[in-house]
Amino acid sequence: MTQVYDRVAVIGLGLIASSMIHAMRRAGLAGTITGYDLSESHRRMAEEDGLCDRMAASAAEAVKDADLVALCVPVGAMGDVAAEIGPHLRPGATVTDVGSVKRSVIDAVAPHLPPDVTFIPGHPMAGTEYSGPRAGFAELFDGRWCLLLPPEGCDPEALGKLRALWTGMGATVEEMEPDHHDLVCAVISHAPHLIAYTMVGVADDLRRVTDQEVIKFSAAGFRDFTRIAASDPTMWRDVFLNNKDATLEILGRFTEELFALQRAIRTGDGDMLFDYFTRTRAIRKGIIEAGQDTDAPDFGRGKRQPGE
Amino acid sequence: MTQVYDRVAVIGLGLIASSMIHAMRRAGLAGTITGYDLSESHRRMAEEDGLCDRMAASAAEAVKDADLVALCVPVGAMGDVAAEIGPHLRPGATVTDVGSVKRSVIDAVAPHLPPDVTFIPGHPMAGTEYSGPRAGFAELFDGRWCLLLPPEGCDPEALGKLRALWTGMGATVEEMEPDHHDLVCAVISHAPHLIAYTMVGVADDLRRVTDQEVIKFSAAGFRDFTRIAASDPTMWRDVFLNNKDATLEILGRFTEELFALQRAIRTGDGDMLFDYFTRTRAIRKGIIEAGQDTDAPDFGRGKRQPGE
Repeated sequence: MTQVYDRVAVIGLGLIASSMIHAMRRAGLAGTITGYDLSESHRRMAEEDGLCDRMAASAAEAVKDADLVALCVPVGAMGDVAAEIGPHLRPGATVTDVGSVKRSVIDAVAPHLPPDVTFIPGHPMAGTEYSGPRAGFAELFDGRWCLLLPPEGCDPEALGKLRALWTGMGATVEEMEPDHHDLVCAVISHAPHLIAYTMVGVADDLRRVTDQEVIKFSAAGFRDFTRIAASDPTMWRDVFLNNKDATLEILGRFTEELFALQRAIRTGDGDMLFDYFTRTRAIRKGIIEAGQDTDAPDFGRGKRQPGE
Repeated sequence: MTQVYDRVAVIGLGLIASSMIHAMRRAGLAGTITGYDLSESHRRMAEEDGLCDRMAASAAEAVKDADLVALCVPVGAMGDVAAEIGPHLRPGATVTDVGSVKRSVIDAVAPHLPPDVTFIPGHPMAGTEYSGPRAGFAELFDGRWCLLLPPEGCDPEALGKLRALWTGMGATVEEMEPDHHDLVCAVISHAPHLIAYTMVGVADDLRRVTDQEVIKFSAAGFRDFTRIAASDPTMWRDVFLNNKDATLEILGRFTEELFALQRAIRTGDGDMLFDYFTRTRAIRKGIIEAGQDTDAPDFGRGKRQPGE
């Protein structure tokens, strides 16, 4: 594959960033990759593993001369990082991010960027419950979506290069509008995560069922919830605080539906339950047909171990 | 392995029953296996595949001469089946079941069984989202728990044989008391399933996010929910109707917790969210350490395809 960017700077070296670095390397998409992370232990791990070509001592230093700057920090930290790097960006550079929320990131980042820099927000729809510089692997984005949210009048050449980067890293790129993005993600990702966190918390709280029993006998449904609820706490705190309205709206609808199902259980309305469960089964069928999951019990995740 | 039962009858030929049959065959645990299913299409599939050694024309016929009768029908159908087979059971036979709810099954089944028959309720803690006679596979119970709920004064020889059967099919057997079983399962399985069904239903309802978008972009959290919500509608309707009190209690606690988290989002209480998510992450760690899941991204499900 052809090199897309000469010099790439990656700020924040977590799961997504380290996967991007492995994926860029796999396809030879970047000349030099410079990295920086606020956490000393993350910097040390990246250093030890030779994750980046060069480690910088600050975000400002990392972005100097970079053609592409990828902001891979928690959503709530994007504004501060943008303020720090703004004055040090090379004219003509492209800045992108990988945050799971877009409206608040755009509002926090855009004002700090000089006019001769192109900002194209992004959101790769991929992840695992692991985090940190050692959690990444080159295949994370293979066959997954990466949403790009170019502003009106975005430089087509800059957009074309960022699309080429994500395509080269294995993803399929689609463009979306920020507010719609935030609503879609509230439905398919943010609300489900909060619900999983809640259910795992309830299990932990219950006195009459011991923690040991919960852990020992945990069956498929609950095991999957605990996996979701093991995702990075900082990242998810920021997601909820920064996609507040859409998440609360979906949770409101969720509670309404849950009450209707609870009522059906209480009144013994088996037909209502059966019809509901039949409908949700059909949705799963649609997802498998759309190729977003396989019907193999391993979810198409293959045999990969984190950190491989 | 040594044969445990000479003649086994399996009533209801779904995922669990067909997996039991494959697992009994794998280890040579049963002499002859006779099967029956109320559904004509299930009977035909079982016949075509040679699933059982013999197919019976009715449940009553199937259990004649059987040393072990395994009731593998939905929880709500257990009482009717017991009423039908009761008069035809061989003296000294053992009857077990595999229902996910135990108190209501015991109340529905026990009165129909003659005194010279031993009833030992059971619940193998294993499953997939697939159903029917072709969904089963011999490894389903390997390394999983099977809970047995012997009544007071249960014949130790009969209990020993049933334990040997489940151990031979790969499971680890543990005994539990019915009401406690139903509460534990409400926490780790029944409530999580209802919540997954609800969330998938909400996504489907939302007008501003198209079904296509939900399906196309569905990320990890939601994909896992849809898998859970694809489980057999009849089985789960019966579970909720027959474990009503415990499920409603857990859902009540769940709603309470969810409201507290929603409130933290609304008021911007990031510390509360962070602490909560950190705690749930620790629970996941406990589950992996307890060996009930692996930290491999494929959940330890390996490369198995359903129906293999």
